[in-house]
Order: sequence, then structure tokens, then C-alpha cells
Amino acid sequence: MMKVYLAGEIHSDWRAEVAAGCEGLDVVFTGPVTDHAASDDCGVAIMGAEADKFWNDHKGAKLNAIRTRRDLAAADVVVVRFGDKYKQWNAAFDAGQAAAMGKSLIVMHGAEHQHALKEVDAAALAVVERPEQVAQILRYVLEGRLPA
Amino acid sequence: MMKVYLAGEIHSDWRAEVAAGCEGLDVVFTGPVTDHAASDDCGVAIMGAEADKFWNDHKGAKLNAIRTRRDLAAADVVVVRFGDKYKQWNAAFDAGQAAAMGKSLIVMHGAEHQHALKEVDAAALAVVERPEQVAQILRYVLEGRLPA
Amino acid sequence: MMKVYLAGEIHSDWRAEVAAGCEGLDVVFTGPVTDHAASDDCGVAIMGAEADKFWNDHKGAKLNAIRTRRDLAAADVVVVRFGDKYKQWNAAFDAGQAAAMGKSLIVMHGAEHQHALKEVDAAALAVVERPEQVAQILRYVLEGRLPA
Amino acid sequence: MMKVYLAGEIHSDWRAEVAAGCEGLDVVFTGPVTDHAASDDCGVAIMGAEADKFWNDHKGAKLNAIRTRRDLAAADVVVVRFGDKYKQWNAAFDAGQAAAMGKSLIVMHGAEHQHALKEVDAAALAVVERPEQVAQILRYVLEGRLPA
Amino acid sequence: MMKVYLAGEIHSDWRAEVAAGCEGLDVVFTGPVTDHAASDDCGVAIMGAEADKFWNDHKGAKLNAIRTRRDLAAADVVVVRFGDKYKQWNAAFDAGQAAAMGKSLIVMHGAEHQHALKEVDAAALAVVERPEQVAQILRYVLEGRLPA
Amino acid sequence: MMKVYLAGEIHSDWRAEVAAGCEGLDVVFTGPVTDHAASDDCGVAIMGAEADKFWNDHKGAKLNAIRTRRDLAAADVVVVRFGDKYKQWNAAFDAGQAAAMGKSLIVMHGAEHQHALKEVDAAALAVVERPEQVAQILRYVLEGRLPA
Amino acid sequence: MMKVYLAGEIHSDWRAEVAAGCEGLDVVFTGPVTDHAASDDCGVAIMGAEADKFWNDHKGAKLNAIRTRRDLAAADVVVVRFGDKYKQWNAAFDAGQAAAMGKSLIVMHGAEHQHALKEVDAAALAVVERPEQVAQILRYVLEGRLPA
Amino acid sequence: MMKVYLAGEIHSDWRAEVAAGCEGLDVVFTGPVTDHAASDDCGVAIMGAEADKFWNDHKGAKLNAIRTRRDLAAADVVVVRFGDKYKQWNAAFDAGQAAAMGKSLIVMHGAEHQHALKEVDAAALAVVERPEQVAQILRYVLEGRLPA
Repeated sequence: MMKVYLAGEIHSDWRAEVAAGCEGLDVVFTGPVTDHAASDDCGVAIMGAEADKFWNDHKGAKLNAIRTRRDLAAADVVVVRFGDKYKQWNAAFDAGQAAAMGKSLIVMHGAEHQHALKEVDAAALAVVERPEQVAQILRYVLEGRLPA
Repeated sequence: MMKVYLAGEIHSDWRAEVAAGCEGLDVVFTGPVTDHAASDDCGVAIMGAEADKFWNDHKGAKLNAIRTRRDLAAADVVVVRFGDKYKQWNAAFDAGQAAAMGKSLIVMHGAEHQHALKEVDAAALAVVERPEQVAQILRYVLEGRLPA
Repeated sequence: MMKVYLAGEIHSDWRAEVAAGCEGLDVVFTGPVTDHAASDDCGVAIMGAEADKFWNDHKGAKLNAIRTRRDLAAADVVVVRFGDKYKQWNAAFDAGQAAAMGKSLIVMHGAEHQHALKEVDAAALAVVERPEQVAQILRYVLEGRLPA
Repeated sequence: MMKVYLAGEIHSDWRAEVAAGCEGLDVVFTGPVTDHAASDDCGVAIMGAEADKFWNDHKGAKLNAIRTRRDLAAADVVVVRFGDKYKQWNAAFDAGQAAAMGKSLIVMHGAEHQHALKEVDAAALAVVERPEQVAQILRYVLEGRLPA
Repeated sequence: MMKVYLAGEIHSDWRAEVAAGCEGLDVVFTGPVTDHAASDDCGVAIMGAEADKFWNDHKGAKLNAIRTRRDLAAADVVVVRFGDKYKQWNAAFDAGQAAAMGKSLIVMHGAEHQHALKEVDAAALAVVERPEQVAQILRYVLEGRLPA
Repeated sequence: MMKVYLAGEIHSDWRAEVAAGCEGLDVVFTGPVTDHAASDDCGVAIMGAEADKFWNDHKGAKLNAIRTRRDLAAADVVVVRFGDKYKQWNAAFDAGQAAAMGKSLIVMHGAEHQHALKEVDAAALAVVERPEQVAQILRYVLEGRLPA
Repeated sequence: MMKVYLAGEIHSDWRAEVAAGCEGLDVVFTGPVTDHAASDDCGVAIMGAEADKFWNDHKGAKLNAIRTRRDLAAADVVVVRFGDKYKQWNAAFDAGQAAAMGKSLIVMHGAEHQHALKEVDAAALAVVERPEQVAQILRYVLEGRLPA
Repeated sequence: MMKVYLAGEIHSDWRAEVAAGCEGLDVVFTGPVTDHAASDDCGVAIMGAEADKFWNDHKGAKLNAIRTRRDLAAADVVVVRFGDKYKQWNAAFDAGQAAAMGKSLIVMHGAEHQHALKEVDAAALAVVERPEQVAQILRYVLEGRLPA
């Protein structure tokens, strides 16, 4: 069983597209909590409110790190998608962790981000634009079969 | 001797400010090549031109990685500054690598980036806004003295 | 399956409370032998009496270390509870081991111990006061759901 | 050159006594900031005040961790002294980190703490009561000479 | 279950011979994609054509590395076969990786390559000439039984 | 499931005694090939005769190392028994490997070997004389129950 | 000081060319023994003759491994040159070791070997054809200056 | 500078012979305390007498372990000599530690111990009989020169 962590953008359904393309493969996908509100509020919801936004975010980010660290450590492959909106520094941060942990890294982004992501791409084993390419890669890696 | 890697923004003189504040301390600073043009062109300048911009950047980013990996691995402390311009994914990528390597991480950014950087901040041992704070931290860590 | 080691205080039923709050989650809990007398006497009971209390305790502590090391090494998350009585240096010792092993650390203690535990808390991803908060964290981490 | 980290109690002059006993040896000693007020206030003094005592302490403890982690990682031997006052959980926490990092651990405490520290002692290569014993151990380890 | 990675030559049926000789053993075999054309074309087939042969090969070799790294990391034993044709530098490269990762290495080659492979052989726990010897070794290692 | 490697003496039935005492426990035992003749001859039997006894033994010892390394690496606990006969340097060698790999080490030997084995004993978490003590330790470690 | 291991071909003066191009840089070069006869005979010359060529080579290759392992482990950068003659499996073997140890890898070879070396190139941070390019890379990495 | 740990037999002057043969080489030698009485008594001499011989030896062996662990960890090469007398299990134990730490191992013993030491020899990069051979190996490894 291959474990694949799907990091980055949470505002499109790309994770479902990757999974759909992997039907029948011996793959398990993990990833961050994609409920944006829950992800932002988890710290204060469980451990109590904070007057300062910094500590509010801090408590939440640390809870999310429990999940991220575990799933990154267990992953064989880490896919990081950079979307069109927001700063997405957490995506690049996850990519950096994955690279330093020696994980096989696949980066997904549009051509317009190519120059800005050159350091991340340089650490990757594959750079793609679309979810079905991730699925094709995983199928090739596991079964040796290329897309028709 | 404490080794401190200064990652991130290369368009202001913050590295010099940190160094100035550390006068007399047993610290050595390392960091990326800050000549932007050289950093972008190094790959093709040494190893030959590429028709495709992706590979042009790829060759350069990999040469820069020789420097980054070595200096990150040797560092006791990694400082990552996020400035006001550009995507700065390479800064977040360096922060991710530093975190996964167990380095002591100091993050520097303005208050406006607080929410977007919460995952990076959560992995840091200090979050500051100005270069002199980095110098004050290094002085405290090495000599136990607080700013007057 | 997430593995959670529950370290520290053995004189209340907090472990059962955490477990009760995690019903239905894919979690396995481990922890020290909580039979205080057995834990103290195990070394001499199996390997022979000692005239000197130091060696009596030494033999027992080492047998307990076989269990602790194995369970700490296997854990995804280590929860350490500091109660109201005793020195509880073994709890802080376990927290130190967990931190150095890169485990996700959750610390539980009353507000009165906040200052004395600041170094331990600073290494944690969550600091809580009550067992149900631990359960809420584990549920959020595994399923992304916050308490109602 | 042997590097020895002296952890724990900061309210007596035991570090000076150990150093005095090691005169002429090729040893370098490191340890925490022993200015109690500076150690408590460092975080807010450099990075700004906090309304909440928890975060006040948190910021300070993390700055101190930059020093502790670096010195522990560099140490050949870690000596941890437990004194008569306070909870000293940070001493036990440092001992736990040192043990998990595979450092040679020497524990110093009075006989009255023997039972409470049995787990820590069981991870140590030496358990002593007085600073001059630490110096004698270091001299023996480096030069093979026993005290007269 | 013992995991055995079968690296190297892909133009004979030696992998099937090893597997046949291991019937009934608790062994799982992994190895590279042995469809030569797919292995060469996988990069461009999934991620788009390249004008330059170097990058064409580069993209493919990196996809294959996702598979190789994972299977090497998981392997208990790595068998590397050097055949009669081609440069087979990838076989020696896999052997080097396996050696540095501390894997038990078995090398298979004809007597004519003995001198050229002396560095590889010197890192191996066994040097053999024929597939059935690999099977006999695995049977002995797992069951303690020698060939009749 | 706890994995326990039983190293050392192969001329008595102590492995069976340990196993008998562990009935009902979630333990799996591994160990070397105990067929002395097969263990000595395996190398030349599979890979061809050697004129020189040194290389004859060398080839066999390396095949046995494939088994030992794998089982040691997988073990939670390593038990090493020193019997009455032979040099038993391989037992001490296994103990050294186990210690350096951070395994929990249990050493078994008669009182007559106490002084000669003091370095090995000093690295152990338990030193016992009889197989049933090993079983009692494993039962205590896994279930927290002491012998009646 | 940057440590650079120069692996591979020993029948041309490329090592001297690299060194000449690095004049004034803070670099130390290491590499294998380049006296071919000494390298082949070292084992038997020191430890006694062998009737069998395999063991003759085996003893020598292991002595050379003492040097290679140490220098590879200490290196920041590993350069591997593939020349025009011989099998050069030891060069690819060194490249594999370097890659698995996380070293920055530079590969040097002529265009005619591009396809056969694609797996090695894919693990490299730079692929070059001539010694002066290695020197230019090292100068850029250390000083940020490009060739005129 | 190459660091070489000389383990094992302490009742002949073999360490001085090795050192004499290495005159002019950039080598530093370390080793155990060779004052047999001091080595046996160090624990109780510094930390107080023990009624039980086991604990007497235990305290001493642990102090010696502070030295051994540090020197083994720092060593590039570990030489282990087995002499004619005593059990020498500590020599084999040191060899096991060195092997598991990935050190280059050289074993020295007479032909009469060949069979009993086959597992240790199989983990070594060189097996020799006399001190001058160790010196010749170190000279070859460092300078590429063979004995005249």
C-alpha cells in the first residue's frame, strides 16, 4: 500500500479528482483538514479563547501540525498543489518539510507560477499541472502502466 | 561559534542590520546568493543555455540548492524573513526544511502576514518584526544579556 | 490507527476519561504500568532482592524502561499529565524524551503549575487542563470535527 | 575537548565548583542562562509584552530553548542537578532530552530524592551527590586518573 | 515477511527464476518497471514532450526514482544483477544506494566481471552467479535449511 | 506484538524455555539458525567451496549476518545468553550491536561470568540467570503482572 | 571550508584541472587513491597473498572502502566523473552512496553517455562535461560569482 | 585528521606499536583506560563502596562507558585486538557497537581464534595479525603508499 499525502490548496476538489483517477490502485490518501473554518478555529474551540489573534492562530496551527507531521512522516509520496489564490505559504512550508524528510515530492501548479516556484520544483521528482497527471504517475509507479 | 542562516527576502539590507546588531558576538552568518541576476542565471551561465524557461530555472535552482542545503545543515539557527513583495515561496520552503531538520527557527514578518504565516510561526521558536530583534535574541542566547 | 502514549500521573482515572471520550476513533492507547506496587517492586520480585534501596529501585526502573521506551518510540502522540501530588519528575522526564524524539506532545496540568512547567509547555503542540480536551484534540486531528 | 552541559538548579554555585575541580582538563562547560530574572523576562523584553502570563512565559521559554537545544546537541556529557527547592521539572525535562539523544548522563541529587528520581537515575551512567564527584568523573574519563 | 528488491538487468527472466526457487517462502519481491519502453517514455508520456533528449530522459528517470526509492527503503535485502550487455550504471547506482542505506546486499554476476565489480562485491553479504543461489540464500536465511 | 530476538548460546534449549514461559503473551521470538552444522557450512554449500578455512567461514558468517541484521533491527527487546562453553564472542558482538541500535537489552549468564561481562551488563536493562526470568520480565512489561 | 570528494575516473588529470580552477577558494578536495597498481594490490601487500583472484581483489577493495567511506561521509559535495574507458561501476556505486547519504552530487560525463547515465543524472544537482565547469560551480556556490 | 579508536586487549604494548608505525601520519589515537586497577575501581573510588561485587563492577563499567561511547562515536576507524588471555567479551562488545554505528572496523587476532571470531571478522574491512599491519593500513588509507 502506497501512502500519498495531498498538501496545499483546499478550495477546489482536486483531491477527489486524484482519488478518482486512482481507482483500483493500492493507495491511501491523507491530507489536511479541509474544513477551512474548523481548521482556523480548532485551537480556541478546544483549548479556550484568546484575546490576541496571533495566539488564536497559534493554538490552531499547532493542533493542525499534529495531523500534518504524522501524515507527512508516514507518506511515501507528498503531492503539493499551489492554486490561484492566497499566499499559500503553508503549501511551500509542507513541501520544504517533505523535501528535508526525503519524501518523493510531486508539485502541481499552473505555468504562471513556474518562476516563483523554481526552488520547490527543483526538489521535486515530478512537476505537473493537473490532478489526472498525479493519478497517472501513481498508476505508473505502482503498476508500470502508462496512460492509453 | 553559532552558525545562523539568514533565509528569505533579498531586496532589503536586513542581513546587514542583523549583523550590525551582533557586533562582538561569536556568530557566523550564512545565506543565499543575494545577487538576484546571478542567482537566476547561474545554471545556464555555467552549464549552457536552455530553450525552455522551466529548465533554465531548474538548472539554476539546483545550483543554488548546493549552497542552501549545506548552509542549512550546518546552521544552529535559521532566520526566515518574509518581505512585502513577491510570492516568497522559497522562504517558506526553506522554513519547512529547517523545521524538519530540527533547526531553531526564527521568523520575521510584518503583522499583515500573521494569519497567512501561522503554520510557519507555529514551528518557530521566535516570531519578530525587525532585524534588531534577531540580534537581541542572538545576544541573549549566547551571552544571557537583555537589551538595555 | 493513531498510537497515543499516556504518560504521567497514575493516581486518578484520567486515562479512562480520555479513552471514553475517544469512543469510535481509530486510536490505541499505551501507558506505564499503573499498579504502583508492582511498578515499584518488579525488579526485585523477578531478579532477586537488594539490600540497598537505590539498587532495588534501579532494577525496577530499568524494567519499566523496557516498556516506556518501546511505547514512546511507537507513539504518534504523547500526552503527559502532571497531577497535584508528588514530584512527578518521571512525567517531565518522559516529556523530555518525547520532545527529543520529535513526538507530538500534549501536556495536561492545572493553572497553578503553569510557570513551573513553561519549558515543557513550550515544547508541546497543545496544553490542556482536562481529559476531555485531549479526546477532543484527537477527534479533531483524526476526523476534522470540532466539539459541538 | 570534551563538552559538558550543566543542567538544572541555578540557585547555588555548583557549576563553579565543578569547573574548579576540572582545572587543567580539556573541558568546556555550557549551561542555561543563570540570571533568573533575565531568563524569565527575555521573551517579552525582546518581542513585546503579553497580557497573559502563559504567553509571557511561553515566549521566554522558547528563546531559552534555542540555547538549550544547541548546547545539549553539542554536549558529550550532560550533568543534571536536582536541588532542594522548587519543582525542577525543567531539570527532569532536560534529562529526558539528553537520554533520548543518547548523551552520557550524570545525575546529581541528595539521598532524599532517590526514590522520586529512580527513572532518571536508571537512564544515567553515574549518580552522584556532590560537585567534586562530577569533576572526579570527568578527570577519570579524560585522563584515567582516580582521586588520591 | 521478508522484502527483497531485485535490481539491475531487465532483459532476462532471472526475477522469475528467483521467485520460482522461493516457492512457499514468506517473501515479497519488488523491482523496477521491466517494460523497457514504458520505463524510458514514462516522463514525457505523462508530463509532456521535451525537445531535448536529456530532459526527456530526466523526467522519466525521476518518475522511476519514486518507485525505486520507496522499494529500496522498504527492502530487507537488495539483490543486484549485472548482465552481459549495456553499461548497467543504474545497477551499480542502486547497489551504492542500498549499501549506504545499510541494506543486506547480494550481487549476481558472471566471473568475467569480477575485477570490475570488486568494490560492489566488497560491500555485499553474498556474491553469486545464478538465480537459484539467491533463492537458496533466502531459504536458508528464513528457514535455516540448506539445499539438498 | 512485541518482537524479541534471542541471541547467543545454541547448545541448550533455553529458547524453548523462554517461549514456554510466555504462553499467551503477544510476543514473537526470532533468533539465529541453531543448526550448528548448517550455520557453519551455509556459505560454501550455496556459493561454492573454499580452499582456505578463513574464507569458508567468511562466506557463512556473512549469510548469517543477513538474518541477524534483519531480526536485530526489527526487535523491541534483545536477549543475549552466555553459556558455559566456547568463546561466545558472537554473543557479545550481538549485544554490542543491540546496544548501539538502542534496543532494550537483557543479558543472561551465570554468576561466574559476572566480572568478565560487566561492560555488557552495564548496557543492559536487566541481568538474569535463568530463562523463566526472561519470561517473567516480558510478561510484566506487556501486562504489568508479577510472578505469583 | 567546503569539502569536495572527486570520485570516478583515475586515468586523466581532471582532478588537477578542477583544483586549478578553484584557486583561492576555501575548498578541500579528497578522492580515491589514484595509483592504480597500489589500489589493486593494497590488500595482499599488507595482509598476505591470496590464491584466488576474487579474495585478492576483495581484500584490496575493502581497504579502499575505509578511505572512500570516510571521505564521502565528510564531503559537502561529491563529484563523479565517468570517462571513456572501462566499466566504471565503482563510479556509479560511489554516486549511489552519495545520493543515499544526501550529498550534493555533481556528475561529469560526455554527451555519448547521457542515456545510460540518466538515473545517476536524475539524482544530481548538476550535470557537466568539463572540469572547469565544476570549478565554476564551486566558485558560484561559495562566492556567488559567475564566470566572466 | 583521522581518529582511530584502539579497543580490546590491554595487557601488551600493541597500542604503542601501532602508534610507532604511524609516525608522521595525521592520526589521533584514542582508547580505553589501560590502568587495569583504576578501570576496575573507578566507580566505587568516586561514588562510594558497594557491598555487592555486581554493583561495584556496574558503577565502574558505566563510568568507562562515558569514555568508550564518546571515543567510538568520534572515531573514523575502530581497531579491536583479541589477545590470548581472558574472555575479552568487552572487545567483542565494542566491535559490535562499532559495526552498528557504521564505523570502519579492523580486527586483530591470531590464527587460532579465526573460527570463533568469524562473525566479527565478517563485519570488518580488514583482519590482521600484527600491529604493524594496522599502521600500514592507516598509512595506505591516508597517503596511498604501500609498505616497501
